[in-house]
Amino acid sequence: MQEQVNVAILGATGNVGRLLLEILEERNFPAKSIKLLASPRSVGMIITSPKNKSYTVELACPEAFDGIDIVFASAGAKVSQELAPEIIKRGGVIIDNSSAFRMQEDVPLVVPQVNGEDIAKHKGIIANPNCSTAPLVLALKKLDEKFKVKRVVVSTYQSVSGAGKEAMDELTLASQKSLEGKSHDYKAFVHPIAFNLIPQIDVFTDNGYTKEEMKLINESRKMLHRPDLAITCTAVRVPVFISHSESVNVEFASNVNLEDIKKTLVETPDLVLEDNIKEKIYPMPAMVAGKDPVYVGRLRLDESQANTINFWLVSDNLRIGAALNAVKIGEELLKIRAPLAKTL
Amino acid sequence: MQEQVNVAILGATGNVGRLLLEILEERNFPAKSIKLLASPRSVGMIITSPKNKSYTVELACPEAFDGIDIVFASAGAKVSQELAPEIIKRGGVIIDNSSAFRMQEDVPLVVPQVNGEDIAKHKGIIANPNCSTAPLVLALKKLDEKFKVKRVVVSTYQSVSGAGKEAMDELTLASQKSLEGKSHDYKAFVHPIAFNLIPQIDVFTDNGYTKEEMKLINESRKMLHRPDLAITCTAVRVPVFISHSESVNVEFASNVNLEDIKKTLVETPDLVLEDNIKEKIYPMPAMVAGKDPVYVGRLRLDESQANTINFWLVSDNLRIGAALNAVKIGEELLKIRAPLAKTL
Repeated sequence: MQEQVNVAILGATGNVGRLLLEILEERNFPAKSIKLLASPRSVGMIITSPKNKSYTVELACPEAFDGIDIVFASAGAKVSQELAPEIIKRGGVIIDNSSAFRMQEDVPLVVPQVNGEDIAKHKGIIANPNCSTAPLVLALKKLDEKFKVKRVVVSTYQSVSGAGKEAMDELTLASQKSLEGKSHDYKAFVHPIAFNLIPQIDVFTDNGYTKEEMKLINESRKMLHRPDLAITCTAVRVPVFISHSESVNVEFASNVNLEDIKKTLVETPDLVLEDNIKEKIYPMPAMVAGKDPVYVGRLRLDESQANTINFWLVSDNLRIGAALNAVKIGEELLKIRAPLAKTL
Repeated sequence: MQEQVNVAILGATGNVGRLLLEILEERNFPAKSIKLLASPRSVGMIITSPKNKSYTVELACPEAFDGIDIVFASAGAKVSQELAPEIIKRGGVIIDNSSAFRMQEDVPLVVPQVNGEDIAKHKGIIANPNCSTAPLVLALKKLDEKFKVKRVVVSTYQSVSGAGKEAMDELTLASQKSLEGKSHDYKAFVHPIAFNLIPQIDVFTDNGYTKEEMKLINESRKMLHRPDLAITCTAVRVPVFISHSESVNVEFASNVNLEDIKKTLVETPDLVLEDNIKEKIYPMPAMVAGKDPVYVGRLRLDESQANTINFWLVSDNLRIGAALNAVKIGEELLKIRAPLAKTL
C-alpha cells in the first residue's frame, strides 16, 4: 500500500486552489490529511469539495506547515517566496504554481510527461510552469525527440480564468453591461475585455515582450532541455472563460511528413489529436474546459517553408496548465520518493 | 469640377452595403445618383443614410444597371458572378467585394495604397480583397519595398461582423443566453461562438487550410506582386463584434533594425503606429471599430531569428477590409478615368 502524506493547499480559495482540492480527490491522491490555507480575510471560510467533504480555511502562517509533507501553492509569487523557506525548514516540499522560482537553476520546472526526471533533483521546491507553456511543451516534446524542433512561432488566445476568479466575474459583468449598452468599470485587466482582445498579459520587459511571452519562451527552453531553442511568442487575452488556445508554427531540423507527425502526436501521453476537418472537428476552448488532456487539431504542413507545420492547440489552463500538472508532479514525487525529506 | 457618376450598391441591406452608403456620403463621392439594390425580400425597404437621405431598395435585376457607371457589389460571389456580365454589358464597372473574381488573372485585385496602378488594367471588374488581407498588405507593402519580405506567419483573430449582420445578432443573443446559463441555437457559424473560439473560417480546401486562410495567402501574393512570397496563415473566429486582429511574424531578406521598420510603418499611408507599451497603448478591436486606418502595435524584433519582427495589427474589417477600400478603388478609378467605359 502506498504511503500516505500530509498535504496543504496554499491559496486554497482561488481558481487553481479550489481545483487542486477537486483534482486531489478525483485522482485519489494518497493524502492522510488536506489542510486549506489562505490569507487572513479567508480564514474560517468553509469549502466543501465535490465529494462533499468540508474543510475550514486556516491561516497561511509558517506554523501551519508543521508536519506537512507536500504543499501545493497557488497564492502568487510573493507569498511563495515568503513561505517556501518555512515549508522547507519543516521538512516539506513546495510544488509552486507561481513564477517565483521557475527559472532558478536549482529548481526543477516540470511537466511530468515531458521532463519528470528533473523532479529528483529538487531541493524542496518544484515549480509548475506557466499555463500556456505546459501544454505547448507537452505537444512539442516527442516531436522534438524524433525530428528536432528548429524554431517555434506561437500566438496565444488566453482565457480570463488565468487571471483569477475576479477576472472571470469581470468578463461576466462586463459582457452583461456591454450587451445592455451600458459602460462598465474594469480592474482585472488593464483594458476592457468584453467583446475585445488585449494584446498584453502581465507587464512589459525591456525587449518589448511581456513577461507572459518571455515565460513561454524561457520555460519551454528549460523544460525541453533546449536552452538555445529558437522560439517567439505573442500572447493575447481573449473573452473566453476557461482554456487557453495557441496557434503554433513549428519548423523541424529534419525531414518530416504529415503522417509521421500525426503518429508522434497520437503517441504523446495525455494529448488528444482532435483533427477531422471533414466533420468540422477541431478543439475549441468552450468544449475543452474541464477536460484533462491537451487537444491538438488543424494539423497541416506549412507550405511556405520546408519541414514546417501549423497546428492549433487548446487545453484547460486551470487543469493541465496549473492544478492537474501540480498534482501530477506530486504523484511523481511520491513514486520516486527521492529526496522527499525526512517526514516521508 | 469633377464629373459626377451614377452609382449602385448591390447588396445594399447587408453590413457592408449599409456602410458603403455611409462612406460614399462621408467622403463626398461624386455621385449624381445612388441606387440601392438587393434581393426580392428587401425590395421596397427604406434605408435612411446618416446624412438623412432616404433611399428605397430596388430589385437587383439586369435592367437595374441601365445607365449605372459604378456598381459597388457586396452580395456574395454567386450574385456577383451572375450580374457582372450584365453590368459590363451596360457600360458599367463593378467593384466587387466577393471572392468571385479576385484570383482571375484579368481582374485587378486592389488596395489602392498598395497596388492602385493595377486599376488601369481592368476590363469592367475590379476586385476588393478579403477583409484580413487588405490591412495586412497595406502594412507589408512599404516594408517589402524597402527590406524585401522573405516569409510571413499570420494568426488571425477575426470578428463576427465578417460573417454578416446575422452573425452579429447571433453573438449578441448567444452571449445573453450563455450568461443566463441557457443553451442557444447557432446557425451563423458551424459551432457556438459565445465565449468561444472557432479555428475555421469558410470551408476547408484539399491541403487542410480553410478558404479564408488560402485567400489571405493568395491575395497577398497577387497584390504585393510577389507570386512566390512565402506566407502561411491560421484564421480563427473570435467573439468580437467588429475589427479583425492579426498576430504577424515577418522575416526580411535584408538586414533590418527596429528604428528603420518603425520609420517605414510611420510613412505608410493610412497606417497608424499605435505603439507605446510604457503607457499600455496598442490597438484593440473594440477601440478600432468605426475607424478608417490600419493600426499596428506591439512592434518588436523576433529574437528567435535574424531580421525578423513580430507585430499586432487591428483594423475595422467592414471599413478598410471592405466598404472603405471599395470606395477608395472607386475614387482612384475616377481619377485615372482610364478604360471607364463609354458612359463617362
